[in-house]
Amino acid sequence: MIIIGEKINGSIPSVAKAIEERNADWIRDLAKKQADAGATYIDVCASVDEDIEVETLHWLIDLVQEVTDLPIAVDSPSPDSILGALPFCNKPGLVNSVSGEGDKIAKIFPVIADTEWECVALLCDDTGIPKSAEDRLRVFDHIMEEAKKYNIDPSRLHIDPLVEMLCTTDDAMENLAKVMKTIKDQYPTIHITGAVSNISFNLPYRKIVNLCFMVLSMNAGLDSAIFDPLNRDLIGAVYATEALLGMDDYCMEYITAYRDEMFGPIKS
Amino acid sequence: MIIIGEKINGSIPSVAKAIEERNADWIRDLAKKQADAGATYIDVCASVDEDIEVETLHWLIDLVQEVTDLPIAVDSPSPDSILGALPFCNKPGLVNSVSGEGDKIAKIFPVIADTEWECVALLCDDTGIPKSAEDRLRVFDHIMEEAKKYNIDPSRLHIDPLVEMLCTTDDAMENLAKVMKTIKDQYPTIHITGAVSNISFNLPYRKIVNLCFMVLSMNAGLDSAIFDPLNRDLIGAVYATEALLGMDDYCMEYITAYRDEMFGPIKS
Repeated sequence: MIIIGEKINGSIPSVAKAIEERNADWIRDLAKKQADAGATYIDVCASVDEDIEVETLHWLIDLVQEVTDLPIAVDSPSPDSILGALPFCNKPGLVNSVSGEGDKIAKIFPVIADTEWECVALLCDDTGIPKSAEDRLRVFDHIMEEAKKYNIDPSRLHIDPLVEMLCTTDDAMENLAKVMKTIKDQYPTIHITGAVSNISFNLPYRKIVNLCFMVLSMNAGLDSAIFDPLNRDLIGAVYATEALLGMDDYCMEYITAYRDEMFGPIKS
Repeated sequence: MIIIGEKINGSIPSVAKAIEERNADWIRDLAKKQADAGATYIDVCASVDEDIEVETLHWLIDLVQEVTDLPIAVDSPSPDSILGALPFCNKPGLVNSVSGEGDKIAKIFPVIADTEWECVALLCDDTGIPKSAEDRLRVFDHIMEEAKKYNIDPSRLHIDPLVEMLCTTDDAMENLAKVMKTIKDQYPTIHITGAVSNISFNLPYRKIVNLCFMVLSMNAGLDSAIFDPLNRDLIGAVYATEALLGMDDYCMEYITAYRDEMFGPIKS
């Protein structure tokens, strides 16, 4: 499972405050903790006005890179801000994100074409978030045509079928599972990702909904996810589900992760 | 989800001690707690020598019925002990269990034929636990033929495809899911059950493995399960998964159960 650590995001009030006050130690600590907890990428999202977004991303990226060698997920709704921030990364990471909207693909794909950068692609377009699985798959087909043009291999793409809140969308999981399975069958090396906690928006005790959603999504093909790696039960669920899905012979990875205190009680 | 509360089982040392000492209050308390936690049946398993099993079951069943109106799951490997204990139950409950072994079906099915008793049927026979999904389905077909003979409707059967420990059986989940789906497709009103905690035998931090297993099994058709209803996160996972699987419009049951403090933090 590819874990995109979500915590450095300016839309979270405590992070916004740390950015505002340029509290470098606090940001470094948040990056370090996520790296120690097993993140694969550290997501960095400034959530500030676009005119100061690149410099803010620069500041955040530098701080993360001071405490970990993990690659960065450069996260912004603006393709220009993403492109402005890419050069500050010490190594290829993850563009978060493109979609079928506007000129995102036209701007991002040519720049990452001949690099090792990977890219999250959301299955929405200028008409918004398609309701049906079929319409999301239409957006997916369009994205794959564009990726082919720029010679971007499916294995460099993380397709996000867009997780919607369960409380108002009864077929949310059914639709998602259908989209995930169809895509994974078509492109076995592609990654399927998603913002796990979106599913539980407006519900109480969100962590159990997120966890069960993660398990069902992994069963449908999810192999990459944006979430809080400091949630130890979610990390444990990832290892347990991989074992249950036959991806971990004799549960050796599960047992090793437990011994390394990646989940379960903290003894040391 | 049909929850068979597993805690009154003489194979658990503290329960064995309470049975030995005829500690009625302790047994009553264990029954009451499981009823309050949302159990559908209270399982009663004596785990004593067969010559004192019926009288022990009688004592246990009386105690449970003093504190709850829930039906009893009469649990014994001996069909004779089960038949001896049925008359002590105030209302039809669940026979736990028959299987393709020996004369279990021949003894139990005629007695429950024209009653409202339901029955757990394990997919093993005199050759043991079949390894392949196909062989378990062969045992299943035999059980269904017998049920038909006695006019026992599929909706009164809880088929237990037999949960094996994950750490030594890499395809445990895949096999089980296949068996569960095949059976549910064939008989939509039948119940699929299982002893959830068997999956995590010999693994650390069993509760996360049990929980993920429950989610994946529900996705495959499990709608009845033998587990500890005092495990609040497992109860929460049941409600969350039902909502995710489209069985709970607008998550109303999930939200109500949370408000009723069936899972999540205990406030009162």
